[in-house]
Amino acid sequence: MITIALDAMGGDNAPRAEVEGAVLAARELDVRVVLVGIEATVRQELARHRAKGLPIDVANATEVIAMTDSPSQAFRRKKDSSVHVAARLVREGKADGLVSAGNTGAVMTTVRFILGTLAAVDRPALAAPFPTSKGTVTVIIDVGANVDSKPEQIEQFAVMGEIYYRAIFGTKRPRVALLSIGEEEMKGNELTREAANLLKQTTLNFTGNVEGRDVFNGDVDVIVCDGFIGNVALKISEGVVLHITGLLKTALTSSLSAKAGYVLARKAFKDFRKKIDYSEYGGAPLLGVRGTAVIGHGSSNPNAIKNAIRVAAELCRSKVNEKIDRELAAVALAAKG
Amino acid sequence: MITIALDAMGGDNAPRAEVEGAVLAARELDVRVVLVGIEATVRQELARHRAKGLPIDVANATEVIAMTDSPSQAFRRKKDSSVHVAARLVREGKADGLVSAGNTGAVMTTVRFILGTLAAVDRPALAAPFPTSKGTVTVIIDVGANVDSKPEQIEQFAVMGEIYYRAIFGTKRPRVALLSIGEEEMKGNELTREAANLLKQTTLNFTGNVEGRDVFNGDVDVIVCDGFIGNVALKISEGVVLHITGLLKTALTSSLSAKAGYVLARKAFKDFRKKIDYSEYGGAPLLGVRGTAVIGHGSSNPNAIKNAIRVAAELCRSKVNEKIDRELAAVALAAKG
Repeated sequence: MITIALDAMGGDNAPRAEVEGAVLAARELDVRVVLVGIEATVRQELARHRAKGLPIDVANATEVIAMTDSPSQAFRRKKDSSVHVAARLVREGKADGLVSAGNTGAVMTTVRFILGTLAAVDRPALAAPFPTSKGTVTVIIDVGANVDSKPEQIEQFAVMGEIYYRAIFGTKRPRVALLSIGEEEMKGNELTREAANLLKQTTLNFTGNVEGRDVFNGDVDVIVCDGFIGNVALKISEGVVLHITGLLKTALTSSLSAKAGYVLARKAFKDFRKKIDYSEYGGAPLLGVRGTAVIGHGSSNPNAIKNAIRVAAELCRSKVNEKIDRELAAVALAAKG
Repeated sequence: MITIALDAMGGDNAPRAEVEGAVLAARELDVRVVLVGIEATVRQELARHRAKGLPIDVANATEVIAMTDSPSQAFRRKKDSSVHVAARLVREGKADGLVSAGNTGAVMTTVRFILGTLAAVDRPALAAPFPTSKGTVTVIIDVGANVDSKPEQIEQFAVMGEIYYRAIFGTKRPRVALLSIGEEEMKGNELTREAANLLKQTTLNFTGNVEGRDVFNGDVDVIVCDGFIGNVALKISEGVVLHITGLLKTALTSSLSAKAGYVLARKAFKDFRKKIDYSEYGGAPLLGVRGTAVIGHGSSNPNAIKNAIRVAAELCRSKVNEKIDRELAAVALAAKG
């Protein structure tokens, strides 16, 4: 059975959402969960559930990383944080992978340092799933692990993202595109032009450049970009969603008839909100580290935590890391030869 | 009276939306409009309005740039396009500024080559206004005129964007921020770290870094970034808006009670759509060229065209270009000294 170490202290609703998510995962999925956090707190929370007989363990971690801690401080000064302990469990083989909905920067830094990077990988990258208008998922990689990437690193992100997409979304030959500012090859900046040249020479199903407006139309499966661009894309999207849903709320409480309309359409709004809720897709894996790490959104609810555990377990089962090392070695060989 | 040359053949609804927008502007604003396009077509459209006595002229241009033309082809091969003629009217002093809702890349290229760049400006930049949750406007500069910008160019974008913001939105001391991937100064990439250093030394009201999610919260007035980043930000925002409004439409026609709810709340939805409609804000000026050029969205309706003409006229009246040259010269002097 796959074992996933879950940072029980990570998210905005920790440990409540984490523990409930772990119970759901242990009950519904074929997976063992190790809840990592301040043991007394975690056990107290666990006692609120009928968790007896479920494959759930607790591992003690005396420190908690705050959302406001800087990544490097969190890594250097809190050696017994729940993220550290979870990462050590993976390194020591006591868990196959880890999940955290904590401070993204701190989780990335800690996981990279404790687990290390795969042999063929230059820099690990964060892959974020986005829902599309077609009801499919498009993955953007990298969304923030790396800035000032080199063309060769963009190529590696593409290979890693494609392997992850195959493993989690079951597509045989995912369409891979490069995020740029125009579809024509000459558009873009120095980095995208050089990266496009490299990507064309791989065996990937590379379909060329896409623009920002194409992220949500479902025409491609994996969109590759530098981490600075990807992070801006991710955060802007979150910003627009917050902005629009806020305006909608104001509009729908502006008059009596608008309120009455809202009451009638409530179920439709619930479906709508579910569709724009990224947490349905199970968090963002940090690909390229020696082990499996999935980072959830800080506001993760129990269902999102369960989904992140499911994704982490599937990444372990489908031996994504072995494939990454093998396929990147082939790319490196092709580049030489 | 300020004279604005309007590319009558530019937008998706040209010349209908353009001509109606020109009539609205000539009627409501203190401005003369020169409609530039295929004369017979433009006059025929104009005859549909009661335009007699309004300050509207027509200038003939025999060619039309398509949305699919590449910028360089449009510039080199269609020397008598409506954009060329409009730009020449500005260069020859027959118009004070121009407005086009045409092919953005082609308009930028043509305008830059025909009008030239202001003495103190390295590269012109496109400034796009975004509506915020506070009901204010935040301007992002650059959204696509320049990629691979240098820190000094980012600094120039900031100065130009701030002058435009003062002129159009009436704020005395606009808050200027740098688009990055974290609020801490050390976050970001090489470019943003160097640009932040420069911006701190200016007399601008520089408030530091903002993240993508802050674009819509109204906490800052001008957000500066490289054109590749800004263009991705703009296009992603458009993509999210399309995606969400599409999902909302589907949700609200999914059942009888949802439909009934929509009917009741229709006015609220109309207000909501108006608030997320960027065209209310009058297009994006290309700052730093010798003359005034405002680029509207391809889908501009007559009201958006009128607003773009209003913005172009205000930029002329408030002598934005003189201010840009003067303030950038001061920045250059300070850097030397």
